Amino acid sequence: MLSACCFFRYREAYWMEEKIRIAVDAMGGDHAPGEIVKGVIKAVNRKKDLSVVLVGRQEEIAACLNGQAYPQGSISVRNAQEVIGMAEHPVEAVRTKKDSSLCVALGMVKRGEADACISAGNSGAVLVGGQGIVGRIRGVKRPPFASVMPTQQGGMMLLDCGANVDARPEHLAQWAKLGSIYMQYVEGIQNPRVGIVNIGAEEEKGNALVKETFPLLKEMDEKGIIRFTGSLEARDIPCGPCDVAVCDGFVGNVVIKMYEGVAKVLLAEVKEGIYSSTMSKLGGLMIKGALKETLKKFDASRYGGAPLLGLKSLVVKMHGSAKAAEVENALYQCMQFYRQDITGKTAMFAGEEKAQADAERSQDGI
Amino acid sequence: MLSACCFFRYREAYWMEEKIRIAVDAMGGDHAPGEIVKGVIKAVNRKKDLSVVLVGRQEEIAACLNGQAYPQGSISVRNAQEVIGMAEHPVEAVRTKKDSSLCVALGMVKRGEADACISAGNSGAVLVGGQGIVGRIRGVKRPPFASVMPTQQGGMMLLDCGANVDARPEHLAQWAKLGSIYMQYVEGIQNPRVGIVNIGAEEEKGNALVKETFPLLKEMDEKGIIRFTGSLEARDIPCGPCDVAVCDGFVGNVVIKMYEGVAKVLLAEVKEGIYSSTMSKLGGLMIKGALKETLKKFDASRYGGAPLLGLKSLVVKMHGSAKAAEVENALYQCMQFYRQDITGKTAMFAGEEKAQADAERSQDGI
Repeated sequence: MLSACCFFRYREAYWMEEKIRIAVDAMGGDHAPGEIVKGVIKAVNRKKDLSVVLVGRQEEIAACLNGQAYPQGSISVRNAQEVIGMAEHPVEAVRTKKDSSLCVALGMVKRGEADACISAGNSGAVLVGGQGIVGRIRGVKRPPFASVMPTQQGGMMLLDCGANVDARPEHLAQWAKLGSIYMQYVEGIQNPRVGIVNIGAEEEKGNALVKETFPLLKEMDEKGIIRFTGSLEARDIPCGPCDVAVCDGFVGNVVIKMYEGVAKVLLAEVKEGIYSSTMSKLGGLMIKGALKETLKKFDASRYGGAPLLGLKSLVVKMHGSAKAAEVENALYQCMQFYRQDITGKTAMFAGEEKAQADAERSQDGI
Repeated sequence: MLSACCFFRYREAYWMEEKIRIAVDAMGGDHAPGEIVKGVIKAVNRKKDLSVVLVGRQEEIAACLNGQAYPQGSISVRNAQEVIGMAEHPVEAVRTKKDSSLCVALGMVKRGEADACISAGNSGAVLVGGQGIVGRIRGVKRPPFASVMPTQQGGMMLLDCGANVDARPEHLAQWAKLGSIYMQYVEGIQNPRVGIVNIGAEEEKGNALVKETFPLLKEMDEKGIIRFTGSLEARDIPCGPCDVAVCDGFVGNVVIKMYEGVAKVLLAEVKEGIYSSTMSKLGGLMIKGALKETLKKFDASRYGGAPLLGLKSLVVKMHGSAKAAEVENALYQCMQFYRQDITGKTAMFAGEEKAQADAERSQDGI
């Protein structure tokens, strides 16, 4: 009797949980549509409460789906004949290619036909389309690209990673909170530590932007809005002394690309060393498994893609070179983001901040 | 008869070649004075035309020199009782600690008692002291810290690495030429390629500073002043597609510190992987030699320290953690810099540039 009761309660919970609908740009990225579709199939087979709309050239997507097993009704296809190329001018592309996979996917989010959108396509077009089609939350000044970077201590969210190359102190201050909300509710880190990317540990160090942002972050810390831990030197980033790091989009992009570039070149050199003699080749075979294990924590794909924070619905940009694993993780990331209502939490913070700023302004007027 | 003649000619050349005199801050850096003195002893034993003045606490330096072999007269000691700490405020320290090893060493350069100065001490103090005591070359707008970074293709000079965190386009343009002069005459690279650190390969990418600097560099290329190859994405830096890379001091500092940080953490993880089991430990022993060989090219110490370019005499800042090898190489770097008269070449360029700017201004006035 007890077990039957449990069974019914479980079923009830299962059916009551609504499915999360994600629009996937099937044509964006270097490995589209093959790897994109592969990642989607893996995810829908794992998560019963996930429903994906693959947006792009119907026939190409159908060819990838052909013969694959996945729960009935978990994947549908939405035809879009145009594709925005990686090198196209973002504003121009979004304006003219209305029937592109990206624009159609973003349009579905805007109309509420999907809860989130992921794309591995042209970053600039995702930024322009995200802001233009999906739209900003009221009170959010500049949506940042926010990427979770792997470190020795786990993931660290870096924002902005390239959406706003010339930012102002109040933008960085807002990103500090947006990043904190994300890391707390999506990655489950209580009271995340926020740092500002700087060229030294002392408060007086930094360029004009950092020097002006520093007191704003300190004030937010004093008010209990964020937990600010001060300057973060670039050399310490891979160790992971913070959970959230803020900087302008130019610096953020340099940080993230240096990380990728140095790691790639160094590991290639290690490999070259191993392949240079018969003895070292044999040695290489003996360390392979152990090395794979320790380097696993530096696999960026496990954190999904880079969300464009502060939009009315979630838009996630994956690497142009994203493969199935990153696509799969980006889908889980979207689900967690949606379930935790990050958009609602962001809107509440941005609204309160705006109301306070308006009140201060009107008080000054009196 | 012939051999005796050769002998005399050789002796003559030897004696005619003047010794290069370098003032070394013996107290600056984490491993001072021990490693500093060790590096100096190695260098004077290798180069007959090098003469070093070790500046700092006489008794401590004497203890390091005690029992060491080096050519008579190649090393002398100049007493200076004060030391500028790594965390001291630069302006304050240079102003008040006149008898510090750094200030005394820089003073020797100013008065012509030394041809160059090297220090592994407080970067800010080297910058402030270098500009304040040694002085800028007329026409040089902002002396940059210029560091030669190891890449897969050899060394690449990055400037500015942290002296000017808020720079203007005309500063970057001048640094492009200063870096080109250095790489051509000190590192022997004919017609060095100059790139600008950017977040994408296309000309329209970048922040305001990069967008305004780009046309200046293009114009310099058209006039044959430099060889400009366009934007340089951070991810490509470790591959070494350029010989000179320009950026503001904030970005440069982030680049150089990310490079150090990622390399350090990744190699530590590789090591951890190797030490994780008996089999992988054995494998590690088998690859050790080969790995050391391929990673040798990434040893930054072989390029010496970071010169503060554009001063009336050379001032070189080494890493705070510099050991004997870096000290030794920094001394050779100073010798090459002096022999190639980089200061003279820089002065000529800066003078011509200034004269042209003045002429254009006066023409505009008419």
